[in-house]
Amino acid sequence: MLKNDLVLRAAKGEEVERSPVWLMRQAGRILPEYRATRARAANFVEFVKNPELSAEVTIQPVDILGVDAAIVFSDILVIPEAMGLPYKMIESKGPWFENTLKTKADVDALRVAEVGDLEYVMKALQLSKKGLDNRVPLIGFSGASWTLLAYMVEGSGSKTFSKAKQFLYTQPELAHQTLQKITDSIIHYLKGQVSAGADMLQIFDSWAGVLSEPMYYEFSLKYIAQICDAISPLVPITVFAKDAHYALQKIAETSCNTIGLDWTIDPHQARMQTKGKTLQGNADPCLLYASDEKIVLETEAMLKAFGKQRYICNLGHGLYPDLDKEKVKLFVNTVKNFKG
Amino acid sequence: MLKNDLVLRAAKGEEVERSPVWLMRQAGRILPEYRATRARAANFVEFVKNPELSAEVTIQPVDILGVDAAIVFSDILVIPEAMGLPYKMIESKGPWFENTLKTKADVDALRVAEVGDLEYVMKALQLSKKGLDNRVPLIGFSGASWTLLAYMVEGSGSKTFSKAKQFLYTQPELAHQTLQKITDSIIHYLKGQVSAGADMLQIFDSWAGVLSEPMYYEFSLKYIAQICDAISPLVPITVFAKDAHYALQKIAETSCNTIGLDWTIDPHQARMQTKGKTLQGNADPCLLYASDEKIVLETEAMLKAFGKQRYICNLGHGLYPDLDKEKVKLFVNTVKNFKG
Repeated sequence: MLKNDLVLRAAKGEEVERSPVWLMRQAGRILPEYRATRARAANFVEFVKNPELSAEVTIQPVDILGVDAAIVFSDILVIPEAMGLPYKMIESKGPWFENTLKTKADVDALRVAEVGDLEYVMKALQLSKKGLDNRVPLIGFSGASWTLLAYMVEGSGSKTFSKAKQFLYTQPELAHQTLQKITDSIIHYLKGQVSAGADMLQIFDSWAGVLSEPMYYEFSLKYIAQICDAISPLVPITVFAKDAHYALQKIAETSCNTIGLDWTIDPHQARMQTKGKTLQGNADPCLLYASDEKIVLETEAMLKAFGKQRYICNLGHGLYPDLDKEKVKLFVNTVKNFKG
Repeated sequence: MLKNDLVLRAAKGEEVERSPVWLMRQAGRILPEYRATRARAANFVEFVKNPELSAEVTIQPVDILGVDAAIVFSDILVIPEAMGLPYKMIESKGPWFENTLKTKADVDALRVAEVGDLEYVMKALQLSKKGLDNRVPLIGFSGASWTLLAYMVEGSGSKTFSKAKQFLYTQPELAHQTLQKITDSIIHYLKGQVSAGADMLQIFDSWAGVLSEPMYYEFSLKYIAQICDAISPLVPITVFAKDAHYALQKIAETSCNTIGLDWTIDPHQARMQTKGKTLQGNADPCLLYASDEKIVLETEAMLKAFGKQRYICNLGHGLYPDLDKEKVKLFVNTVKNFKG
């Protein structure tokens, strides 16, 4: 049994003694220990594919930062790769795909990923679970169908994802076929993660915010809802749709347990729009550049605004690589010591 | 007197026979005529500084697309340059500053820009005004104080503007000193534009959306309000704060006339939150990749949602360079022919 199950209880809406805390990208470059492990892999994709190295960095923040959950170190783009679109991670540029989706033939050539295609992630989860020794829950994750399609069409990161949106506008039926294939792959993948030891799952819809409200419901949330329906009977699931401020109410209508919020969302507004759901977030990562005094003040204000129950403290986005580890610890300890 | 003053009447809340339309980045790469003029300058900054070339591309979309207003071709970064921070525009990368703001000494060294520092923009406005021959109004513009500071600290574009935000979090007093100097420069600049012939002005707060709601009010809207108070007695002024979905109500409390909206904002919601103001926007630029049928359908739905009065039709962001000129024309004509 888990020694600290605060995150799971909060996600399920059960009473907690204090709000739990973890951080997106906690297994990341802010830790010298992460950078040392990372240096042992030839490149980013090899790093992601090495279960031993992945488990090592998954566990580090639990030891070093004292967070209430671990999140498996991996990448959202393992699914496109398993479906037949491999990618490279180019230093200080981001992901890059040699082949992208353009035509029906490209989509037909995609295979639906099976758990067997992603054994290395399952192994990483198993090793992480073992190394954590039931200290805290282990969170697994996937990109949302739309966010994955966005990369598979665009071929790289983008400010506008205009090629990916052009695909939705000009070939909506083909887009839906692709999104269904991706969704089926994600469901296989996440069920596999549960079998491999994930206590909870999170869907990252990183590029939600480039879509308009009606486009978001049609091309993204519809598929997120399918994923939540498949997963929520097994373990709690969180939906984090960055910049989709307009969609909170509709996200709350899915069977997800927890809703992630970015820092542009007001906690009180979010509570009103998401009745019955647990909320997660939403400190501005840049707050952790501020003075210790300001970090404590603003973190405590956020804890008060959300309230102790049905709340998982986190940032509104991933940690930035140049943040000071000590500031991150201060944030974590402020949450853990808060008597509000 | 202006032959077509629809945009001005709509901005002032006066009755119009139909909603007017213009497009952000209409003086831009979608037009072959623009690309031909652009090719006559050695580089982007030289292009911006050449009043004859600027006036030429300012007028082109009035002739070619039939829009109801011209917007002077310039760049928001002329103000940082006039204050002492020159920049280069790097092809397919964006702006780049050799020197950035870090310390009090850097801020002290900035001068408040005067109209004389930006004579080339004034000349471009005068030539544009003359070339337009009172067919349609001429719009001038400036970046918002926060957006300009963001570039002056970050030194380039950025997904997160984390350096610029770090500046706000760690040196708030110095940030306010800088923002006031920038605001004073903007007010001089915009008053100069009115004298040079601008019939209306727009403030672009392109990086509003990276700030949280309280940070936005403290570090951006406060200065936008100063600018509106200085300008709105002279000519109508529009505030376009991209991605600042949370701030509509507070923007409506400034003395601006018109509020620009990106495509993530619902027209009905916006109307409720911005009583008494004219709204501008907010089609997704990617809509113009769609079939003619879909463009007409969605544009008409948008026109209905906003209603004829107190509305200036536009996109929710600038035109993307690879959009087809014929699709853009279809959008413009759909607005002009709409009998709703």
